[in-house]
Amino acid sequence: MKIAKFIPALDWMPKYNGTQLKGDLSAGLTVGVMLIPQGMAYAMIAGLPPIYGLYASTIPLIIYALLGTSRQLAVGPVAMVSLLTAAGIGALADGGTETYIMLAITLALFVGLIQFLLGAFRLGFLVNFLSHPVISGFTSAAALIIGLSQLKHLLGIKIESSHYVHEVLIEAVSKFGQINWVTFAIGLGGIMLIMGIKRYFKAIPGQLLAVIFGILAVWGFGLTEQGVKIVGEVPKGLPSLSLPSFNMDTIQSLIPVALAISLVSFMESIAVAKAIQARHKNYKVEPNQELMALGLANIGGSLLQSYPVTGGFSRTAVNDQAGAKTGMAAIISAILIVLTLLFLTPLFYYLPNAILASVIMVAVFGLIDIKEAVHLWHADRSDFWMLIVTFIGTLALGIEQGIGIGVVLSLAVIIFQTSRPHMAELGKVPGTAFYRNVGRFKQLERRPDLLIVRFDAQLYFANINFFRDRIDELIQEKGAGLKALILNFDSINNMDSSGVHALEELFTDSRNRKLNVYLTGVKGPVRDAMVKGHLIDKIGEDNMFMSVQEAVDWHDAQIVEQPEPKFHEFTLQTNAE
Amino acid sequence: MKIAKFIPALDWMPKYNGTQLKGDLSAGLTVGVMLIPQGMAYAMIAGLPPIYGLYASTIPLIIYALLGTSRQLAVGPVAMVSLLTAAGIGALADGGTETYIMLAITLALFVGLIQFLLGAFRLGFLVNFLSHPVISGFTSAAALIIGLSQLKHLLGIKIESSHYVHEVLIEAVSKFGQINWVTFAIGLGGIMLIMGIKRYFKAIPGQLLAVIFGILAVWGFGLTEQGVKIVGEVPKGLPSLSLPSFNMDTIQSLIPVALAISLVSFMESIAVAKAIQARHKNYKVEPNQELMALGLANIGGSLLQSYPVTGGFSRTAVNDQAGAKTGMAAIISAILIVLTLLFLTPLFYYLPNAILASVIMVAVFGLIDIKEAVHLWHADRSDFWMLIVTFIGTLALGIEQGIGIGVVLSLAVIIFQTSRPHMAELGKVPGTAFYRNVGRFKQLERRPDLLIVRFDAQLYFANINFFRDRIDELIQEKGAGLKALILNFDSINNMDSSGVHALEELFTDSRNRKLNVYLTGVKGPVRDAMVKGHLIDKIGEDNMFMSVQEAVDWHDAQIVEQPEPKFHEFTLQTNAE
Repeated sequence: MKIAKFIPALDWMPKYNGTQLKGDLSAGLTVGVMLIPQGMAYAMIAGLPPIYGLYASTIPLIIYALLGTSRQLAVGPVAMVSLLTAAGIGALADGGTETYIMLAITLALFVGLIQFLLGAFRLGFLVNFLSHPVISGFTSAAALIIGLSQLKHLLGIKIESSHYVHEVLIEAVSKFGQINWVTFAIGLGGIMLIMGIKRYFKAIPGQLLAVIFGILAVWGFGLTEQGVKIVGEVPKGLPSLSLPSFNMDTIQSLIPVALAISLVSFMESIAVAKAIQARHKNYKVEPNQELMALGLANIGGSLLQSYPVTGGFSRTAVNDQAGAKTGMAAIISAILIVLTLLFLTPLFYYLPNAILASVIMVAVFGLIDIKEAVHLWHADRSDFWMLIVTFIGTLALGIEQGIGIGVVLSLAVIIFQTSRPHMAELGKVPGTAFYRNVGRFKQLERRPDLLIVRFDAQLYFANINFFRDRIDELIQEKGAGLKALILNFDSINNMDSSGVHALEELFTDSRNRKLNVYLTGVKGPVRDAMVKGHLIDKIGEDNMFMSVQEAVDWHDAQIVEQPEPKFHEFTLQTNAE
Repeated sequence: MKIAKFIPALDWMPKYNGTQLKGDLSAGLTVGVMLIPQGMAYAMIAGLPPIYGLYASTIPLIIYALLGTSRQLAVGPVAMVSLLTAAGIGALADGGTETYIMLAITLALFVGLIQFLLGAFRLGFLVNFLSHPVISGFTSAAALIIGLSQLKHLLGIKIESSHYVHEVLIEAVSKFGQINWVTFAIGLGGIMLIMGIKRYFKAIPGQLLAVIFGILAVWGFGLTEQGVKIVGEVPKGLPSLSLPSFNMDTIQSLIPVALAISLVSFMESIAVAKAIQARHKNYKVEPNQELMALGLANIGGSLLQSYPVTGGFSRTAVNDQAGAKTGMAAIISAILIVLTLLFLTPLFYYLPNAILASVIMVAVFGLIDIKEAVHLWHADRSDFWMLIVTFIGTLALGIEQGIGIGVVLSLAVIIFQTSRPHMAELGKVPGTAFYRNVGRFKQLERRPDLLIVRFDAQLYFANINFFRDRIDELIQEKGAGLKALILNFDSINNMDSSGVHALEELFTDSRNRKLNVYLTGVKGPVRDAMVKGHLIDKIGEDNMFMSVQEAVDWHDAQIVEQPEPKFHEFTLQTNAE
């Protein structure tokens, strides 16, 4: 147990050099400049005053830089987690109030604790159960919800905060007459500016430019007179040390939200960290250490008034492209935010909310992934429906419910599939020793005296009835000429005690019917299960073969004697009901 | 759609003959004689007056005889379903009251409707998800709960009805001084009589004999004076037609119980029906028709004051052994109960509760299956723990919770296993064309320039990370001499869109590393997924082989050129967070 394992920064720190610093400086400043508008905007999604987005962009970045295994991951406030925060604590307190803010900070503590514990207990693999279609459907729906939640800021109207998209749209349309067109013009200008710069001048920080444009326009033309809503006073100075306080009620109500945020934010973070790492071969992303690092970043953050953070897609990509070599880049970003907090907050007084809304809308509408849905429609119809159900579930039932439905349903489909797996009768490829599915290839040779069956799944409790019933059907179809049953076990990767029992019954029944049974290609784990269940003695080693062809040859070489039933007949337990 | 398909009795009725009648008569009378004490006893478990056990032994038997596919299954009140009834409605009303009785009858209606619908929609397969260890653990725990619930009748003391075994035991011990020793003597006598006859004189109906012994003892010696509790007045006459009445509240509170009973009772019934059918080749048990038949038996029963019924183990076995050939046996049993209801109920006035308790205890303690636990300890440790967890869960948390935990946990284990499946590096069996796991066999030939890997599970979202990480590790271990990666797909039975994506990434990465990649033994469904995902063109048909040996031969035959990367590099989507 070396301490360096828990502080991956000790890997790069001792060898740190000027070239690395040059890259880190450029990347750190670029990301820092993005963080100012994004942090404030995402805090708005979370229902928090903008300053909390900046607080969340300080200490968590530094903690991750020291403890994280990725060297380019840019941690901080992100849109999805901000939405989950708003959805989770919106039910417990009114947005922007003292209680609400305290709950958001306490939430960061819980998220941090959960992530740290998941990492410490090496449960990072849990995130594997979020399938790509589920993530895609969920992300698109969440992006739609986030985007539309900003409609009120873009249009300068009041919309009762709602997570149901159709309600927001109906209310917006019904209040068409109240739209503040100056506000809308500023917001639209922001959107066009950011998108235009993104397309034509990649090097220029469009979001910051939109912020400057917004501030100048409001200040220069006195647009507050026109009813344009502005950010107003942003307190100067660093976040203060604060211990989140909570009681059992808080814990009970926050734990489900915290759990959802822990997993979703880790999933987002690990996905981008792995993608970036694939382009850098000099380090390795380790999921459980990542969980602990993100956990401690959130815990540390919560002590300094930060709400939940994670590693985000866009800033990480920018960080990498701008040349980040180590966690030093993130430290530099954090320093830039600290300087902003100390000296620049008064400049944001005239920043219009509509500009923050435009920053958010451009960011999230890019996440609505229609291409993936179209791709899945062609590539995998079942995954397509999984995406759609998750998408609609998230819109119609809510954020956490949507992802919950997606996860449960995608696992249920897997279980259902393995309970009725693909099963094939095999025939011989003429002139070879290969046997393939007779349903798929036409020229295969079939013999009336042999039934060769391949079962394409582990043999376990949920599919033993299906296995027995199908084999009985196939035996019936073959009719009276049938002399032997060859079970190709190539695809049976595992077998539980129910599987052993079913196989034992099949053997007994078949012997009673004077059918020889041979097993071929039995794998190690399956053989182990047979040995432990005392089945192997009953089957007999001489009825087990490496390949189907060997079993067929052996069968043909025998004078096909009718074997006597070797087992006791299956008798009923008749103790009681 | 022939009507005969829905009335399986039309199969045997037209050909019914004297030999069959002889068997049916003997079996029907034997089972009817068992039904009298069992019916009354099981009604007591359900918290109902004994007469309701006899009501439940009339019309449901006749309906099943006409509609069921099994010809020996003996339907009626059973211990497990009686316990579930008590557990389910015990929370809603006090045992034995009018409301309680009405709820029990309404429950039968709901159970019937659910079973009928499950059968009509062909959802009988759902019962496959109850694994044997879960059933065994659940049955043992339920038997313990049922048995101890009768302790109060056996000892003649008052014990607050509780489903927690330890509470019952503590209360019984604390009331040691209040034990009515005469009651206890009768009960113990009943137990010894039933067990003794069961062991030494199989042909004699021990339970009925115990009933007669009990009635005579109480009546002859005037034991009610000694405080021995008796059944008292049992109303004469047939059940009356009654429409269960209920409102939305009733529905809401009964549905979960009804669902649990529907599945558990179907599982018990189908298991015994299939076991018996295996000994008779002249008919076939069809799960969905069984569900509909049991459903209609419960619906019909509920209209004539019956509580939920199903096919039970012991009476079915007796029915079969006594020579039942068709459903006529069950009809004869029902007629015997009808005659009992009409003429014999006054005889049960002096029947002591302790005798009914002894009937129950002998029946259920035989269900506690320690052998199975011991067997699983040796045969399959994971299944052993599944049994134990279900057993303890049922005892500690409750009947439905216990079975719920078992089902969820056993499915979670399957999912977990497939998320970290067995994966093997293969080596050549010297002198053959077979390749086997190098971790399992010592003499296999390995080459430094080839990495041959077999992945033993479907490739899907929950295991793609594991797949990629393991392959990366193996590639690292092989070192610089590695020239080709051969993926043996023999065991990969399925692949979802995430699997296709992961494979595509692996291909891109490997080509970038100048590694040739070959696939061998790709199955139909997997090939389909590759075609739909446009992966097959990228891999190239000429890199796919029937067997590992063919891939190795082809690789050796090539002048191993370094292929150029064919795909675009993986680039990040950088739209937003």
